[in-house]
Amino acid sequence: MRLRGRKGIRESLEQQTDLVVLDARSHKGQWSDFFGNDRPIYVEFGMGKGQFISQMSRKYPEINFIGVDMYDELIRRGAEKARIAWEPEGVETPPNLKLALANIEYAEEVFAEGELQRIYLNFSDPWPKSKHARRRLTHPRFLHKYRGLLGSLGEIHLKTDSRSLFEFSLNSFADFGLQMTNISLDLHAGGINEEHVMTEYETKFVGQGVHIHRCEAIVGTEALERYQAARLDKYRL
Amino acid sequence: MRLRGRKGIRESLEQQTDLVVLDARSHKGQWSDFFGNDRPIYVEFGMGKGQFISQMSRKYPEINFIGVDMYDELIRRGAEKARIAWEPEGVETPPNLKLALANIEYAEEVFAEGELQRIYLNFSDPWPKSKHARRRLTHPRFLHKYRGLLGSLGEIHLKTDSRSLFEFSLNSFADFGLQMTNISLDLHAGGINEEHVMTEYETKFVGQGVHIHRCEAIVGTEALERYQAARLDKYRL
Ligand SMILES: C[S@@+](CC[C@H](N)C(=O)[O-])C[C@H]1O[C@@H](n2cnc3c(N)ncnc32)[C@H](O)[C@@H]1O
Ligand SMILES: C[S@@+](CC[C@H](N)C(=O)[O-])C[C@H]1O[C@@H](n2cnc3c(N)ncnc32)[C@H](O)[C@@H]1O
Repeated sequence: MRLRGRKGIRESLEQQTDLVVLDARSHKGQWSDFFGNDRPIYVEFGMGKGQFISQMSRKYPEINFIGVDMYDELIRRGAEKARIAWEPEGVETPPNLKLALANIEYAEEVFAEGELQRIYLNFSDPWPKSKHARRRLTHPRFLHKYRGLLGSLGEIHLKTDSRSLFEFSLNSFADFGLQMTNISLDLHAGGINEEHVMTEYETKFVGQGVHIHRCEAIVGTEALERYQAARLDKYRL
Repeated sequence: MRLRGRKGIRESLEQQTDLVVLDARSHKGQWSDFFGNDRPIYVEFGMGKGQFISQMSRKYPEINFIGVDMYDELIRRGAEKARIAWEPEGVETPPNLKLALANIEYAEEVFAEGELQRIYLNFSDPWPKSKHARRRLTHPRFLHKYRGLLGSLGEIHLKTDSRSLFEFSLNSFADFGLQMTNISLDLHAGGINEEHVMTEYETKFVGQGVHIHRCEAIVGTEALERYQAARLDKYRL
């Protein structure tokens, strides 16, 4: 089948301009225009096969979603999943979803300052060797990038099976001075937590009985104020 | 054997005024006088049989240690261990260690504001049922107490086998606005971590292959400044 070859994949992607973004850089600062509205933009960095971002776009129509990955083949599979996910709605083009081919290393060339409201990091590569620590997507050098891209309501949401990546990430968030919240060391402890849309990796790991770790880091100033107000309420301190 | 009886235990404790403190409240604000010097005071809340606090007092002679528990029998065993630990030094009375019978619920009646520099919580009872959350020693109502007792260099050091207590504690520290550092989800991952003196519970759990979680929370203003300076250094941000 022709579509399986590298050239075929590229051709298929080029034909899906309604959903797939191959020239992500050219939309920098103009993603809202591209979506045609001013709704908040949530991005998944390293979306893989796209189950999470597809389902999120269905579940939260009031949000614009962008799935980012650096491999053509994953963007292609993501697009396939997205269309299938939206089929029941009778639309061919998911109205609030784009799948962008891009390298997170250069995220600031794809998104402008404050353009995003949430960054999802799901099952990012753990890079267990300490000499590769700088490649981990929660390394302070990435947090520095993310902070620039996130607006005043900005948050980072992390999920991972990897104990070592989670440990590293907690320390990294803490060292970076980010307020953490909703830390979980076993997200599906009492059976599948339906509240959270699952990723491909998550489905696999949960099936194997592996614990899923989760944490949110609050980046934006307004997000922090809201959190603090809610906290006072919670503990009546 | 008479010492096994309740009355025997109490008598034995009453004879050990050099090490055992039965009237902890009467030393409030005067622990330094009691030790006879101005060295920092580190306390373990819920010391159990006392292995940790005994060994710490040997390892760090420049620090004054107080082990707190609410059971006579544990204070008795702690005293026994402490004397054995110090035997090689040829002293009968550990110079920098006291074992105090007290209930942590009333910690503020035992210690004055700013009197402590560090609080150790080792393998505290996890109280897994959510209706008992308020009893967990890292509940915000306890953090509130601790903050009062800790001076400007104050820190809380937590170790536990309990995933649920650790998760709760991380959220509690975060919600309380404390800077966390040195978060570990598997303290002895690469073999026993000799840097950290082990407790009785820890020895047992590590032997069973259970992961030990650890975290430090920075409470004092000067401690926070020092931490922040070191952090800038670490990441060159
Ligand atoms: C382990 S997979 C997880 C996929 C998906 N989030 C899930 O949970 O099922 C990590 C993904 O991140 C992508 N990735 C890693 N580094 C990247 C980078 N620098 N830029 C873009 N994508 C990246 C990989 O291609 C891969 O698809
Ligand atoms: C699970 S044991 C751990 C003992 C020791 N830290 C260890 O790691 O081996 C918890 C200890 O906390 C003590 N404890 C619990 N609540 C307490 C309270 N309110 N006041 C004083 N001690 C308390 C118990 O008596 C018990 O010895």
